[in-house]
Amino acid sequence: MLPTAETLRIDADRLWSSLMALARIGATEKGGVCRLALTDTDREGRDLVVQWAREAGLAVQVDAIGNVFMRRAGRNPSLAPVVSGSHIDTQPTGGKFDGNYGVLAALEVVRTLNDHGIETEAPIEVVFWTNEEGSRFVPVMMGSGVFAGAVPLAHAHAAADLEGRSVRDELQRIGYLGAAVPGADHPIGAYFEAHIEQGPVLEDAGITIGAVIGVLGIRWYDCVVTGMEAHAGPTPMALRRDALQVAIGLMHEVVAIAHRHPPQGRGTVGQVLVHPNSRNVIPGRVRFSVDLRNASDALCDEMDAELHACARRLSGQTGLSITLQPVSGYPAQPFDAGCVAAVEQAAARLGHSCMRIVSGAGHDAVHMARLAPTGMIFVPCKDGISHNEIEDAKAEHLAAGCDVLLQVMLGRAGVAAGR
Amino acid sequence: MLPTAETLRIDADRLWSSLMALARIGATEKGGVCRLALTDTDREGRDLVVQWAREAGLAVQVDAIGNVFMRRAGRNPSLAPVVSGSHIDTQPTGGKFDGNYGVLAALEVVRTLNDHGIETEAPIEVVFWTNEEGSRFVPVMMGSGVFAGAVPLAHAHAAADLEGRSVRDELQRIGYLGAAVPGADHPIGAYFEAHIEQGPVLEDAGITIGAVIGVLGIRWYDCVVTGMEAHAGPTPMALRRDALQVAIGLMHEVVAIAHRHPPQGRGTVGQVLVHPNSRNVIPGRVRFSVDLRNASDALCDEMDAELHACARRLSGQTGLSITLQPVSGYPAQPFDAGCVAAVEQAAARLGHSCMRIVSGAGHDAVHMARLAPTGMIFVPCKDGISHNEIEDAKAEHLAAGCDVLLQVMLGRAGVAAGR
Repeated sequence: MLPTAETLRIDADRLWSSLMALARIGATEKGGVCRLALTDTDREGRDLVVQWAREAGLAVQVDAIGNVFMRRAGRNPSLAPVVSGSHIDTQPTGGKFDGNYGVLAALEVVRTLNDHGIETEAPIEVVFWTNEEGSRFVPVMMGSGVFAGAVPLAHAHAAADLEGRSVRDELQRIGYLGAAVPGADHPIGAYFEAHIEQGPVLEDAGITIGAVIGVLGIRWYDCVVTGMEAHAGPTPMALRRDALQVAIGLMHEVVAIAHRHPPQGRGTVGQVLVHPNSRNVIPGRVRFSVDLRNASDALCDEMDAELHACARRLSGQTGLSITLQPVSGYPAQPFDAGCVAAVEQAAARLGHSCMRIVSGAGHDAVHMARLAPTGMIFVPCKDGISHNEIEDAKAEHLAAGCDVLLQVMLGRAGVAAGR
Repeated sequence: MLPTAETLRIDADRLWSSLMALARIGATEKGGVCRLALTDTDREGRDLVVQWAREAGLAVQVDAIGNVFMRRAGRNPSLAPVVSGSHIDTQPTGGKFDGNYGVLAALEVVRTLNDHGIETEAPIEVVFWTNEEGSRFVPVMMGSGVFAGAVPLAHAHAAADLEGRSVRDELQRIGYLGAAVPGADHPIGAYFEAHIEQGPVLEDAGITIGAVIGVLGIRWYDCVVTGMEAHAGPTPMALRRDALQVAIGLMHEVVAIAHRHPPQGRGTVGQVLVHPNSRNVIPGRVRFSVDLRNASDALCDEMDAELHACARRLSGQTGLSITLQPVSGYPAQPFDAGCVAAVEQAAARLGHSCMRIVSGAGHDAVHMARLAPTGMIFVPCKDGISHNEIEDAKAEHLAAGCDVLLQVMLGRAGVAAGR
């Protein structure tokens, strides 16, 4: 008996085998992957995915920033396609799943539909976006950013790596400088992206599926506290202008601010540079990074205001100079309520545990959410670790996420009547 | 009319000229001095001081660690000499006054006695000690340490610089490997050392003379806090093991401990190393230095106990590992009450403002205090800055300190009757 749309399941083994096959391209000794954007290794990875797409009967189109769209026709060609994918470039010491899972899960959806001869009303497209990681070329999420109009094409083409090689030259060199103008004449009906969580929340809660409600807004700053360096021995406490002691007050506040803005407020000091950084010298200058995140821009604004207020207060109390330099930021991006609900409902129908979750990291879906109803499906990864060669995920979780993806895509695209 | 001992004054211009002449050997472009121990430059400096000593009629003796004693006979050769001096080696980017002032002030005392034909009962010795700074060879205060029996001679001889050249070989090469066994058959009647303060206390208080009551005890530690590195975006506050946030609690306590042990308690975190030190990664490990000082070993013990208690408390509260590794330490060294009083009384007779002060940094006088009644005379230095090419001091302050030195040395040595 042929399965109905509801009883249809993806092939977990095929999904896993594809992930492992792609991971062999750029495989590292420690079990990770190094496949930097637009390198020869990236070309190999791209070629393999494109070959699989052709074998699955998909029509391949490459745009001028190297995004690759692999299209399965729908019964009604006038409908905008339901699109799913992610990226296949990695960090220098990246893992097998970040990005690659989203691309191959979308391909597995198509293969499953093929297996069962299921036609959809709307077309379906599998996509991989160029240079999501940003390790070799800035900015991150470049391909989806150009597609969505957030990054000018000329700006992206001109971006160069440390050896001075430009994105445009490297696209041409590896054969992925397409003719299509990114985003032009390319409506999107809906966008879904499956991804490992890259955090510990699902694993900690023992939940299989995360229905992602949005991506946190980010504010980055560089803070510099300037005091006066002096010898640790001869300088009494009352005559010190110890930059580190003032800096740690603000470092503590970064975390306190996050705790005052639950449940999604996050505050991190990741980088600290002490000058002159000598055991018996009172620090004269401390520079440190601040990373504030929350689920809405209004909450990010509140956190920003509290950070500045604390800096002013500490500077006033101590007489030391404190500067807060904004470095960069991204607005918060909520996802489409209908897409979130569809993920929850699909998980429930399939019998997978599910919780609402935010994404603390950026994804290509952030850019797509400006263009079309967008949702993301998270699955757990081991110890919440990503951007690391030891990144790992369970085959059963990856399969569960892919089954949810199949359901939500079918729900959006519509199963053509008469089968 | 010949001056009496009380109205005798040193020659401020001669003292200043001698300081400037010695500072030309190893002079740096920025106005400092680079005269590392046992280099050719050190030899040049030693030769100049020895030449001056011979011109002043002093008998020169060099011991096996290169300490140079320049003796002016007293009427009673059975009395132990009153000794004064310091060191002439400098930091790589050192100043003109640190150490050099103590040696040339003692020489100026002798020159002044010569000018006026004053004979003392006890002999007087000017000394410069080998490798006080410890920049090239470890340990610091090497020459006085060997003389006092705190550092074995063989250990000091074997100490090597980064190029592998030993102290013994370098002493021989520059002609300062003497025959005398350090400290043997060399009783000390009393020891006085004049020095720039190397801190801001006198300048801040507007006081000319510091009567040093002792040298602070020092405890050095390396502290390592180990958490778990994780991405700043996807990791909620409740699931973090942020090593930096725990570390800053202990860094804050280092200073709080010092404030709880006034007036001389000092606490400094000078060096901080954050791993992996990346803007969007929660720090997994933080290593930092702790420097605790106070005027007695009992107070240092109390501070040590509070530091360890705080580390245990923070580790218990957070579950993160905190290790405190002792690196090194020096006991507190109080100076002789009679010597301190003599400095105060001399300053009062001379009309110079004077306050009791502690030394936060180590000096050769620390070792000498184990052998004989010892005192130090501090004079202000500009902005409390030392170990820096911009180190500076006023000629009138240097002269005032030297006049006090003259008085206290005469007081100890005794002016021979019958002049």
